[in-house]
Amino acid sequence: MTMTTREQAIARDAADPLAPLRELFELPPGMIYLDGNSLGPLPRATPARLAQAITAEWGQGLIGSWNSAGWMELPRRIGDAIAPLIGSAIGQVVVADSTSVNLHKVLAAALRLAPPAQRRVILTEQENFPTDRYIAAETARMHGASLESCSAEGLDTALTSRPAVLLLTQVNYRTGAMHDMAAVTQAAHRVGTLVVWDLAHSAGAVPVDLLGASADFAVGCGYKFLNGGPGAPAFLWVHPRHADRAENPLPGWLGHAEPFDFTADYAPAPGVARFICGSPAVLSMTALECGVATLRAADAFGGMAAIRAKSLALTALFMERAAARCPGLRCVTPAARGSQVSFAREEGGYAIIRALITRGVIGDFRAADILRFGVTPLYTRFIDVWDAVEHLAEVLENGEWRQPRFAERLAVT
Amino acid sequence: MTMTTREQAIARDAADPLAPLRELFELPPGMIYLDGNSLGPLPRATPARLAQAITAEWGQGLIGSWNSAGWMELPRRIGDAIAPLIGSAIGQVVVADSTSVNLHKVLAAALRLAPPAQRRVILTEQENFPTDRYIAAETARMHGASLESCSAEGLDTALTSRPAVLLLTQVNYRTGAMHDMAAVTQAAHRVGTLVVWDLAHSAGAVPVDLLGASADFAVGCGYKFLNGGPGAPAFLWVHPRHADRAENPLPGWLGHAEPFDFTADYAPAPGVARFICGSPAVLSMTALECGVATLRAADAFGGMAAIRAKSLALTALFMERAAARCPGLRCVTPAARGSQVSFAREEGGYAIIRALITRGVIGDFRAADILRFGVTPLYTRFIDVWDAVEHLAEVLENGEWRQPRFAERLAVT
Repeated sequence: MTMTTREQAIARDAADPLAPLRELFELPPGMIYLDGNSLGPLPRATPARLAQAITAEWGQGLIGSWNSAGWMELPRRIGDAIAPLIGSAIGQVVVADSTSVNLHKVLAAALRLAPPAQRRVILTEQENFPTDRYIAAETARMHGASLESCSAEGLDTALTSRPAVLLLTQVNYRTGAMHDMAAVTQAAHRVGTLVVWDLAHSAGAVPVDLLGASADFAVGCGYKFLNGGPGAPAFLWVHPRHADRAENPLPGWLGHAEPFDFTADYAPAPGVARFICGSPAVLSMTALECGVATLRAADAFGGMAAIRAKSLALTALFMERAAARCPGLRCVTPAARGSQVSFAREEGGYAIIRALITRGVIGDFRAADILRFGVTPLYTRFIDVWDAVEHLAEVLENGEWRQPRFAERLAVT
Repeated sequence: MTMTTREQAIARDAADPLAPLRELFELPPGMIYLDGNSLGPLPRATPARLAQAITAEWGQGLIGSWNSAGWMELPRRIGDAIAPLIGSAIGQVVVADSTSVNLHKVLAAALRLAPPAQRRVILTEQENFPTDRYIAAETARMHGASLESCSAEGLDTALTSRPAVLLLTQVNYRTGAMHDMAAVTQAAHRVGTLVVWDLAHSAGAVPVDLLGASADFAVGCGYKFLNGGPGAPAFLWVHPRHADRAENPLPGWLGHAEPFDFTADYAPAPGVARFICGSPAVLSMTALECGVATLRAADAFGGMAAIRAKSLALTALFMERAAARCPGLRCVTPAARGSQVSFAREEGGYAIIRALITRGVIGDFRAADILRFGVTPLYTRFIDVWDAVEHLAEVLENGEWRQPRFAERLAVT
């Protein structure tokens, strides 16, 4: 893949079969956006669709739109659109609530499926995303169990103690390291451990095959690679072998078999629909539906396989160029990776990201020392990667990140 | 108040100080909308505000809008706008998740605040809204407790067994009957029981005084009288005497004291902010902020006191006219009521509502036998009530509800 000139990057973009998909997004002119793994950009289809949902469906249709505009079906309909992206099938996925809330649901459901004698431990990685650890610790405690942690390398050893549930985020939010879902799931199942996968950084970023891996439960995020908008609702998947007996610990009325019978006692809907809780946030859901449809437009251009191939090429270029141009950075992203490149930097990581943002190159900083750059093949070009690394090299070389204004801490970074 | 002619209703509207507020809403021409207790109508300010959030904040500002557009502050900022509507103060309310999820949070928090020896029972009404019962039963079970039920009349007796937590919806969703919040809270506190109030049908509908009643916890709905749009996020209140020690059983990263430190272990934010869980659904939140601001426009016209006075007058007129014109209906809404009028009808209740909807009069049906009509003084006029009852009388008299097309069951009613 080695490229040595900017012209080669331009030529590579000219030959890119996914190039037309960039036109499906609103991208501010002059900006190199490498933060789609934090917040996906606005699809061009979304503003008009939202305006219709607001003025026609809500404004004119009012309460009748629960039927006539299909609002009631949104959790299942968007779930079905997500299904092929994660190696699932129709009727196995719902969209509801946030990733954190969905994680609680599936962790509790998994714990309760474990044999009572084994219902003692949820195992996760020390380096898992904090909300996963917080929710898992609390869900464990609520069920008389506890959260235990291991490193990625120590996973096989930790499994020998036969935890009830293994919770892993497939792609690590800091380093971009990616687990082998099939191998890990198989290893866990050998000791009778159920596996919950958090797909926050993999759904829409890499091909995922939940059914192929025979995973047990999964959750994922709507606002990263699914382009659903800030704080978009999350999704939840249950393997069909569990779906009719898994218990939702948040049994809201819309997960009821007959919500409009208003019965005093709960009776779960068949299958994964029981994991819906309260009323769907229709406006945020509608934006998510547009985001997923925008991603699914790639189906006609090779789908997730083509996205993956380009993602690997983009991240490889980023790593190559950074190795050549930025000696002050240590790449922490391994070969088995998601769709991002991360660097550890002891001094000034936060200020370097701030300086880059001022130049229109948007990455992000993750405490304590990680500079993170996400690539999204739907809109990220090879020239974007080339230029981003050049900016990064300049910021490091000329020391502009040392300006006091870049040290000032913002609420969100 | 007795009115005997349509002209009197028109005159009453002409003298109504709240009349200008109707212009703040998009209401389909010719429709009499009496379902704001299910879904509030579209505020006229909302479409432009949402378009700005979508195209400028998300589309152009991207990830930077978490800071620059104040997205991170939405849960607290909207909470502060809701606070005066429920007798609360700045810093005591957050907006997050759905009513069902928030109910789980505060019920678990309340149970854990109870002395261990008393941590056995959550008491609620048999007639409480189903999701409240489902969530309460499950939250109780998770904590080794159980859900017990009583009737509204049997509440004092049931309290003698000293339940850990009493969960009540202030205004009953079927009948509109309203509890005396201060008296019930006092009775519960006398036996050491904490009280959780569901304000779904009271926030924005009637004056609520949580601090005055010395209540313990409350949750409420964003899409009814707060006009936040379909499935809008919900709110959550904790009395300041509990806020710094109450435990959120869904400790997501945004309820962490320092979310961007990404620490492995959870440390709750001070006060009610710890009850935020995952990332806020920004688009739905922004619509809710418009809805609350639209309601708060009534502050200049007498606020909740003026709204309450008109609501009582509107419901009184509905009851008087129905008694005079609809002998086939039995009113089940008592004098101590929220902002709705309900009738029990053994035969054809569903079809009668469907026939009314076809005439442009929007009420709703609640199984098994309740016809429900909500009034919202911001936009409901006396002439609307007068005409609605005339339509209702005609539908009953001429038997048009017996047409087979009205019997066909829709997914949502």
